Amino acid sequence: MLCKQLVIITGPCWRCRKFMKLAVTHVVGTGDYNGPDEFSKEELNMARDHGVFIKKQYSQTSKEIYELLPIAFNQKQVVEASAVVAVLGDLENIRMAEKIYGQAVDAGFMPADTAKSMVEHYTGMYSSMPPEAIRQIAYTDGGLVSMQLMLVTRAKGYDTVPIGGYDKQKFMEAFRISERYIPIMLVAIGKAAKPGHPTVRLAVDDVAFFNEMPKE
Amino acid sequence: MLCKQLVIITGPCWRCRKFMKLAVTHVVGTGDYNGPDEFSKEELNMARDHGVFIKKQYSQTSKEIYELLPIAFNQKQVVEASAVVAVLGDLENIRMAEKIYGQAVDAGFMPADTAKSMVEHYTGMYSSMPPEAIRQIAYTDGGLVSMQLMLVTRAKGYDTVPIGGYDKQKFMEAFRISERYIPIMLVAIGKAAKPGHPTVRLAVDDVAFFNEMPKE
Repeated sequence: MLCKQLVIITGPCWRCRKFMKLAVTHVVGTGDYNGPDEFSKEELNMARDHGVFIKKQYSQTSKEIYELLPIAFNQKQVVEASAVVAVLGDLENIRMAEKIYGQAVDAGFMPADTAKSMVEHYTGMYSSMPPEAIRQIAYTDGGLVSMQLMLVTRAKGYDTVPIGGYDKQKFMEAFRISERYIPIMLVAIGKAAKPGHPTVRLAVDDVAFFNEMPKE
Repeated sequence: MLCKQLVIITGPCWRCRKFMKLAVTHVVGTGDYNGPDEFSKEELNMARDHGVFIKKQYSQTSKEIYELLPIAFNQKQVVEASAVVAVLGDLENIRMAEKIYGQAVDAGFMPADTAKSMVEHYTGMYSSMPPEAIRQIAYTDGGLVSMQLMLVTRAKGYDTVPIGGYDKQKFMEAFRISERYIPIMLVAIGKAAKPGHPTVRLAVDDVAFFNEMPKE
């Protein structure tokens, strides 16, 4: 039996970013969500009774937020944050080599023939690399980029929540992301509603070793 | 036929970090390197003729440097840098959970029962996770850590060279690293001998998209 739910969450307005109650109907076990423009009269009344402000232009584009909530295992930061950046790895990044080295030539940083031989070198290298090695590079580079993103965000006065635990398969489907890309992490960004929990770090002697690994 | 080479490189003294000529003999095609303490008289003379300062205590501990040079496909930063940090990923990182949460309890950041249930939660989660998912986390977290390492290093007035292209299998063997760990990257650290090459970045519109991917 199909079970239909009326879900009400507090999320940012897609236009003014203010928090408001948003409603959506959801057929349990599916990825189908309907906004208020597709509600029955009974559903509209039920939502209004729960304090949802029904106005078509404010709710119609919230599909991504509703979809992301169950995908992120209901971690509420994905709907409460001002923005969520999904960091992706490009498995065909080598296709960008010509553009990047072309820009380096245009900027006067590199002679054209050096750029040409670099592009040839890397294109050859990538074409002979096992897919697993390319994925490893994408995961590591994704970590490098994510750290920069979080530190730059913090430097601008915002806070971030990196989210590694989410349903990556469903995320790729919901946002129709091509297989060229792999999901790295979600980074929720916004003004912190309250300070983060304080955390500890292992001592450097627990994680760093000189020339050889300690015996376990 | 075995071919023996006398290799002379300029590398930092293991003790005073000053650059000096270092010699080693190497049987081509093998990982066997011998320092001056195992040189024949002829080899000693040949090294001296090329300006190598032969003194046992200065050359005997350079094994790691000699080994790392061919492993890093002869990228000279690995021998010229003041230090090389090999960033590793720990595939059994969950074994540290109890220690980390214990420190959080000791610091007064978390009640003991919360820590206990977190450790149980994550231990259960990791034990049911496919090995490939754990590796992906290690590669991404390795990227996060490497970026922090490079930025902290830079903030202290040093420069870095991240090296992703090296023989990871040989690296693991040469430094006898257990299979618990996976190699992420090498980070050469030191005072820059000359400024780095200027580089370009793709425009944000080339790499970031709002809500959906552009059609290719």
